[in-house]
Amino acid sequence: MQLYSFFNSSTSYRVRIALALKGLDYDYHGVNLRGGEQYSADHRERSPIGGVPVLISEDGAELTQSLAIIDYLDGRYPQPRLIPLEPPTRARVLEIACLIAVDIHPINNLRVLNYLKREFDSSPEQQSAWYGHWVAEGLGAVEQLLQRQGQVGPYCLGDTPTLADCCLVPQVANAQRMGCDLQAYPRVMAVYQHCLAQPAFQAAAPANQPDFIG
Amino acid sequence: MQLYSFFNSSTSYRVRIALALKGLDYDYHGVNLRGGEQYSADHRERSPIGGVPVLISEDGAELTQSLAIIDYLDGRYPQPRLIPLEPPTRARVLEIACLIAVDIHPINNLRVLNYLKREFDSSPEQQSAWYGHWVAEGLGAVEQLLQRQGQVGPYCLGDTPTLADCCLVPQVANAQRMGCDLQAYPRVMAVYQHCLAQPAFQAAAPANQPDFIG
Repeated sequence: MQLYSFFNSSTSYRVRIALALKGLDYDYHGVNLRGGEQYSADHRERSPIGGVPVLISEDGAELTQSLAIIDYLDGRYPQPRLIPLEPPTRARVLEIACLIAVDIHPINNLRVLNYLKREFDSSPEQQSAWYGHWVAEGLGAVEQLLQRQGQVGPYCLGDTPTLADCCLVPQVANAQRMGCDLQAYPRVMAVYQHCLAQPAFQAAAPANQPDFIG
Repeated sequence: MQLYSFFNSSTSYRVRIALALKGLDYDYHGVNLRGGEQYSADHRERSPIGGVPVLISEDGAELTQSLAIIDYLDGRYPQPRLIPLEPPTRARVLEIACLIAVDIHPINNLRVLNYLKREFDSSPEQQSAWYGHWVAEGLGAVEQLLQRQGQVGPYCLGDTPTLADCCLVPQVANAQRMGCDLQAYPRVMAVYQHCLAQPAFQAAAPANQPDFIG
């Protein structure tokens, strides 16, 4: 398999965690989002919207969208399963994954922050307030869902990692990098800390990618 | 089942289409997003982030996030299947659904437009340019995916409706309401027009909901 990824892209990070948890090998191709490589004609062939990650499967299929890619991997390589098949747990996993992947991440994506800078002449303080606002709304809701579900840990849904954790870890890492105060989310942070200690999550971390820029 | 919905919410509209395609009955509870009802303590109990739709299943489980809800319905009431089980088609359905649900809709959501108005004092022209920008990027990419897949119609993925269509129709309806020029997306628009003529899509349309405001 081939993975087109950027070390610091949290959607790429999700897929890298899934690949690592499943112990799958792949060739890594860095796409430098800071240099605009995602908008090259070559990359637009792979991803019409100009995004990462893109996975080229063993059958040669080009797949975009991190949630669709992880769903594909889970069907093709089901050990370990990241999207459980049992209905109540499955719905809870998808609920948390979507809360992060839909209600937090897209609004704080690089292309949105760039638009704010370009079209609204936003200051660094305004960018930071924007980022923090959506993180607080979103992670606050994740915290409440975990509490409501009587989460016992160490992962979002019990004692094995799921798609929810694949989404949570990159989002928290991003929020920390942006200087957000995360003290109000103790359950979220406990899951995050536990995941960071696991080899698969470490292998997928931005600092351990070939295109890492320090 | 109980559905908490707002007639004009496109994520609620997705779930209403899925319920109608499956021929499922439910009680409709309007949550007036314009009146801020989504932020009431009552509704926050159902949806910590203050969103619609929320589905209360026959077992009494509260489910949020439209994609997670439709996945749940598809498992519990599989006729007709909206997320195909066969890997290549499944990945294509999820790819288009996520492109719309992740890369277009959240950025143009009411709470984001409200933030722009409140914090950036954005003009109606700036709001409209913002909305149109993300629609153009997103629907342009959907159009290219449909073309690349050699889409033959009448739906996104062949001759039966899927989750991709459940996401496409509300997004196009929203874009039309906001006055976006959609001529550049003939495949998208052909799918949209076909769906609008189907009874299930009609039953789910905003104008046919009990909380419709004309």
